[in-house]
Amino acid sequence: MEVTRKNFKDCLNTVYSALEEADFLAIDGEFSGISDGPNASALTNGLDTPEERYTKLKKHSMDFLLFQFGLCTFRYDQKKSKYITKTFNFYIFPKPFNRSSPDLKFICQSSSIDFLASQGFDFNKVFCHGIPYLNHEEEAQLREQTEERRNQHANGVGTPSYISPSSSKGPAHVPEEHKDFINRMVEKVEALFANSEKTLDLEPCTGFQRKLIYQTLNWKFPKGLHVETIETEKKERYIQISRVDEEERKRREQQKLEREQEELNDAVGFSRVIHAISKSGKLVVGHNMLLDVMHTIHQFYCPLPEDLQDFKEVTMCVFPRLLDTKLMASTQPFKELITYTSLAELEKQLKETPFKPPQVETAEGFPSYDTAQEQLHEAGYDAYITGLCFISMANYLGSFLTPPKAYISARSKLIEPFFNKLFLMRIIDIPYLNLTGPDLQPKRDHVLYVTFPKEWKTSDLYQLFSAFGNIQVSWIDDTSAFVSLSQTDQVQIAMNTSRYAESYKIQTYAEYIQNKQQEKEKLGQTAKSWGEDSWVKPHYASSTTSGFGYPRGLRKRSISPAQGEPGNEDSLITDGWSHYSYPDSTGSKKMKTDAQRIPASLMHQFSLCFLDASGQSSVEAVESKTSEGWLKTTDSSDSAGISPVPDDEENPAGPDPSYDADGTVTWQQASMVQGRKGRKKKKKSEGGFFRALDVYYG
Amino acid sequence: MEVTRKNFKDCLNTVYSALEEADFLAIDGEFSGISDGPNASALTNGLDTPEERYTKLKKHSMDFLLFQFGLCTFRYDQKKSKYITKTFNFYIFPKPFNRSSPDLKFICQSSSIDFLASQGFDFNKVFCHGIPYLNHEEEAQLREQTEERRNQHANGVGTPSYISPSSSKGPAHVPEEHKDFINRMVEKVEALFANSEKTLDLEPCTGFQRKLIYQTLNWKFPKGLHVETIETEKKERYIQISRVDEEERKRREQQKLEREQEELNDAVGFSRVIHAISKSGKLVVGHNMLLDVMHTIHQFYCPLPEDLQDFKEVTMCVFPRLLDTKLMASTQPFKELITYTSLAELEKQLKETPFKPPQVETAEGFPSYDTAQEQLHEAGYDAYITGLCFISMANYLGSFLTPPKAYISARSKLIEPFFNKLFLMRIIDIPYLNLTGPDLQPKRDHVLYVTFPKEWKTSDLYQLFSAFGNIQVSWIDDTSAFVSLSQTDQVQIAMNTSRYAESYKIQTYAEYIQNKQQEKEKLGQTAKSWGEDSWVKPHYASSTTSGFGYPRGLRKRSISPAQGEPGNEDSLITDGWSHYSYPDSTGSKKMKTDAQRIPASLMHQFSLCFLDASGQSSVEAVESKTSEGWLKTTDSSDSAGISPVPDDEENPAGPDPSYDADGTVTWQQASMVQGRKGRKKKKKSEGGFFRALDVYYG
Repeated sequence: MEVTRKNFKDCLNTVYSALEEADFLAIDGEFSGISDGPNASALTNGLDTPEERYTKLKKHSMDFLLFQFGLCTFRYDQKKSKYITKTFNFYIFPKPFNRSSPDLKFICQSSSIDFLASQGFDFNKVFCHGIPYLNHEEEAQLREQTEERRNQHANGVGTPSYISPSSSKGPAHVPEEHKDFINRMVEKVEALFANSEKTLDLEPCTGFQRKLIYQTLNWKFPKGLHVETIETEKKERYIQISRVDEEERKRREQQKLEREQEELNDAVGFSRVIHAISKSGKLVVGHNMLLDVMHTIHQFYCPLPEDLQDFKEVTMCVFPRLLDTKLMASTQPFKELITYTSLAELEKQLKETPFKPPQVETAEGFPSYDTAQEQLHEAGYDAYITGLCFISMANYLGSFLTPPKAYISARSKLIEPFFNKLFLMRIIDIPYLNLTGPDLQPKRDHVLYVTFPKEWKTSDLYQLFSAFGNIQVSWIDDTSAFVSLSQTDQVQIAMNTSRYAESYKIQTYAEYIQNKQQEKEKLGQTAKSWGEDSWVKPHYASSTTSGFGYPRGLRKRSISPAQGEPGNEDSLITDGWSHYSYPDSTGSKKMKTDAQRIPASLMHQFSLCFLDASGQSSVEAVESKTSEGWLKTTDSSDSAGISPVPDDEENPAGPDPSYDADGTVTWQQASMVQGRKGRKKKKKSEGGFFRALDVYYG
Repeated sequence: MEVTRKNFKDCLNTVYSALEEADFLAIDGEFSGISDGPNASALTNGLDTPEERYTKLKKHSMDFLLFQFGLCTFRYDQKKSKYITKTFNFYIFPKPFNRSSPDLKFICQSSSIDFLASQGFDFNKVFCHGIPYLNHEEEAQLREQTEERRNQHANGVGTPSYISPSSSKGPAHVPEEHKDFINRMVEKVEALFANSEKTLDLEPCTGFQRKLIYQTLNWKFPKGLHVETIETEKKERYIQISRVDEEERKRREQQKLEREQEELNDAVGFSRVIHAISKSGKLVVGHNMLLDVMHTIHQFYCPLPEDLQDFKEVTMCVFPRLLDTKLMASTQPFKELITYTSLAELEKQLKETPFKPPQVETAEGFPSYDTAQEQLHEAGYDAYITGLCFISMANYLGSFLTPPKAYISARSKLIEPFFNKLFLMRIIDIPYLNLTGPDLQPKRDHVLYVTFPKEWKTSDLYQLFSAFGNIQVSWIDDTSAFVSLSQTDQVQIAMNTSRYAESYKIQTYAEYIQNKQQEKEKLGQTAKSWGEDSWVKPHYASSTTSGFGYPRGLRKRSISPAQGEPGNEDSLITDGWSHYSYPDSTGSKKMKTDAQRIPASLMHQFSLCFLDASGQSSVEAVESKTSEGWLKTTDSSDSAGISPVPDDEENPAGPDPSYDADGTVTWQQASMVQGRKGRKKKKKSEGGFFRALDVYYG
């Protein structure tokens, strides 16, 4: 369903009820551009830390406009054994609400615009009929303004009378040059009382004159009049005066109040949809959704915080359960079955064995999509396809059960390992951003940070390191790059040979990080000065680590036990073991052929630990809907706290990445290796679905 | 006529011939926004210097896109006694030419977009079918790239063989992993020679593989083959090989050359129209056209220079004759007759007496506009209306002649005083930017520069200066403003009383300018560092005052005597007296009623001085087409040089502004006052049309 400013209000209840009945939602956004910064390879350096990546995206992508938002709701119909879908395609544009409201500027990137144009994107729908929106702060400001104006009207506009009610009884102070004008207006109003007309339109005049009129009439005619400012189509404002009895006057005031309230809601506009999605607490699925999530929060909630940790917390408040289908498809057991993880390719592959195309039906009154005829890059369609991909993959997990299940619900524990992990594009050794805990910290002992003259090309780097075996180059900018050596023991030799080099300089990755940290601290000490050039100013003042101030309306959901429904399957679940691990490449390759024959008995060996909504650790018997009994809980009393704290004993050295030839990654965490060695010693439960596979094949 | 990418090439000759036959042109641009910087009042401070204003506009307006360009050509048909008009409405969009071409980013301002949307602007035409363009530098780069690629193809793609022709006879070095692939391709080509097919499409492959194929085939089959890379709709590239005899091969090479040339021209796109306008040297009329001119040069020629003087020089190269109808309407004799100078209002007023609506006719094949039905803010329509306004005002000047003339040509000396002076919005005492000489330097002795806490409002300033009579406040930013006192003798008293103030600080305007100058010099000494934040990087390196490097294709026209037609009325004319003066308000008020009865005899008292295109001063008898004889020249042999140098004797103190109640300005220059006192003493001619009036009523 296409939703623009024209039909937004009429559609809103349809959206609300679709959200309410849904089992899960899929979303997608289209933007006016991707990056206004360095070239793509520098923006997405293969050895970015999650912090660096977040900072880059925040800096170089948030000034674009999210101008189309796709929402597809999926409700499972038990009788039909089918998902019923409702797709909405919202066109969004920050139309200024009034003359004093923010006049947003956004960047367009020619290539992105041209690409959307080639896909038949309708820019007129966006710019002429886009739904407006406000973020929390703007909404609060507008409500305040309205409240203030209302109070002023009630007390004579903006006069001291508001502060000192006694003086409101006196006449307004009319400057000499306006006395004639005001007297003329008063005469007109007096004439209104004398004749049979009910209303009188005064001539258009300045704001100051209107203020004088309001004050004078309030004093001269405290009763029997309704005074209102009306704006013409030409944006001229004039005062309309109506003769009314007290009852009529009250009725009109009430009407005006309601109208103002409605105008306010109109101004909040599309943000109401995002609020409703957020409030629903339902699983929100997206494909490669980090930018979608960042834009959504930035545009409809608050400017993004400086710090990644704060961003994670805000995100968990807005979207308590996210699932990224690109990450899912890049993870075992799908990784080995799926070659290309772009949305279009993924959708195609998931129609073929061993996957099954999902059973879906379009809800009545909604236009249906034909997946054979691609309509990619329309946000609504992309959201729909993303949902289909999720269903296919979720159901595939059901095939591992005994007996196999064809339908796996969005609430199933089977998909929880994929929750709140957002795919990180083109980072070699960190596959995802972990929203509910610390990120993976791969060892980068084999990585060197090299600076050199800007004339250097990749071939010069190959030349320089020719003695050290295969290398991998990740460009940072014109004059620096990371060079990954294939053997860590070569690092010291490379460092030694470079000691007296003049044209270039080599540092270890550790040194690089240390320098960066020092620079950051130095920067933090000097006062931040926003250059005159920063035309899009961050409104967000946040400390670097904690004490992140939530804007009004954003409350830390996971802390408030009142939110959610305790005891209900729907309540917020945080997986206590954010570092779930993956089988090593040998194991996973075996799995490709054998995965479907895992004996259920082996699956008993791992367990899940949940924290309840109040943040206390709890041990609950997982409801085993399917009665296979392979999901069991164990004692996890020592894993307290909301965010899992990295445990040095368990995770002494971080994951040890190993590269595939095609640049994708398989990785394993030291914790897993140790886990295999010393599983019996540990009390804390860890691992997950794939741990089971790992144990079997490990 | 609507012109998009679809019909641009077909329309180009129509545009060219319209330009060629025209007597003058009118232009107008629509932008994606106006200002990304401070609020409008700070962007256009009433006491900006021309340098400050230029710097602000350059900084805060050039990142918007000029996406609709209106051109209306006016040709006077003597027989019909009518202007014949041709209107073009170009939609413009920087569609990237290929993968390596610049991916431009531009800013959109919500209020501007919303405004255009409300006027029925078609954004799809811009973004889906906009005509691409390149500036001079981009064009040069692209031509270079094409040339390079062509050379490489001729010599085996990008191999050292290009440098050392002897080695081009040897086989290409094919890395081990590609040998199989290349051998397979060679076999296919050999098969081509054996069978009856004429062409062979190889499978899509990487750029590196294509390079190997080119090199290998060049070496193995130096004759008899035509090898070409073709791009599919899906942007995949593959090699097509055709069996050809030598003649066919040459023909194809030639075809390819021509196709490349055409593609290049397509990429230059809309810039070709601007080049043609520039080359025509015709009078270009615009309304409030400073931003239009800046955007046009910035987008289609070169990034704007840092320095205002350099900008003036570039502008005179691109548009040797400009006329701003807003400036014209704000100047005597029109100022007193025209209340509102917005384009829509101006057009309305110029239909009424004493003006006459111009006689115009739409050329055959062009859609005609109905001025009764406003289509404002479509660039083509606005250009058309602007042209009409110019005609009405020009013809009105003819009514002063004896006998009066109903038609005044765009080449008439009568309109020359208005040449190359661009209206400056909302500057209290400097009405225009003078493109051909130094700008007016009004006295600002009565102006104070005040800094204060950011809580202050205008009322606080009124309070502070309550002892000093009426003041005028021009906000600079949150914490500073100019305060103009009504009496200059109060300035010192105000300065004295503020000496011990702590919360605020007062400086004279002279001090303010001096500090600013010092800061600028300080900045000039430290190396300019472009912040990481400046995503739109100026490509333009220019020194601060002189030595401005013109981009290729921009030649200083006024210096080259070869340009233009010497002796012809059309040749470049620079008025030697850039500071023409205006009657004081008393005189002009009288003129309002009496202007049409000025005896022609009095008009003899003033004269015009021209510089010819070579920069030498020349005395020429103005061709008096009308034989009224009231335009005569006098000796001006001492006024040499291209740019008029301010003459201290003539202009000792700058103009002395006097404010109208409505905020518009009448001003008179000290030179004029002196002129009246000591006219006889001066050899140098000065003044103009209005001087005559001034002398009469002075």
